[in-house]
Amino acid sequence: MSKQELEVLGQGADGGCCQALATAPLDEGQAAELAKAFKALGDPVRLRLLSMIASREGGEVCVCELTPAFELSQPTISHHLKLLRQAGLIDCERRGTWVYYWALPGALDRLGAFLTAPQPAGATA
Amino acid sequence: MSKQELEVLGQGADGGCCQALATAPLDEGQAAELAKAFKALGDPVRLRLLSMIASREGGEVCVCELTPAFELSQPTISHHLKLLRQAGLIDCERRGTWVYYWALPGALDRLGAFLTAPQPAGATA
Repeated sequence: MSKQELEVLGQGADGGCCQALATAPLDEGQAAELAKAFKALGDPVRLRLLSMIASREGGEVCVCELTPAFELSQPTISHHLKLLRQAGLIDCERRGTWVYYWALPGALDRLGAFLTAPQPAGATA
Repeated sequence: MSKQELEVLGQGADGGCCQALATAPLDEGQAAELAKAFKALGDPVRLRLLSMIASREGGEVCVCELTPAFELSQPTISHHLKLLRQAGLIDCERRGTWVYYWALPGALDRLGAFLTAPQPAGATA
């Protein structure tokens, strides 16, 4: 995955901890970057594709296995996969005839942590 | 929050644990419901509004305090707030002249948990 894609999620590539939604108001730049990732998730076909990829034992899926699950053309599926990739949620590699996709769990975990309410620093704070 | 809004997040109202993205492929119904919530998050203005509401000490914010942060009309802000409410992420109440908004952290936590990779059942499994 490129550094550019990582930055789409509003995090540095160092994996450092991130602001949570409920910590403080987002500035415009943070909101624009995070909105790109959530927009990529905001489509049923893309969510199904991502869950098919992320839940695959072994970690990667041939595009030839994804397309038959949908009543959509190959170019349409490829377009949705491209949007997921541009959002930094999956990556891919061409091998011979087919392209193989895998999820980037770090990116999903960071988005998940962003949505989850921060735990108070002290147990009773 | 209405039961209908809770169901937008693809969960029952009982707060029971939910399928994670990486557990198994989503079916069409689950994907359609979850996509609505992520689509609501997929806009920078809505993300900023939601973070302003969710991070507010005391838990609620008057719409009169939200609008001045944006160079957008009151009806536009109200439309974005309506979409967040329809997605089950916030709720509101009118008191006199103004409407007051608060976040629904349970809904955000469930979406966050959905994105976060499931932990193996055994520590080293």
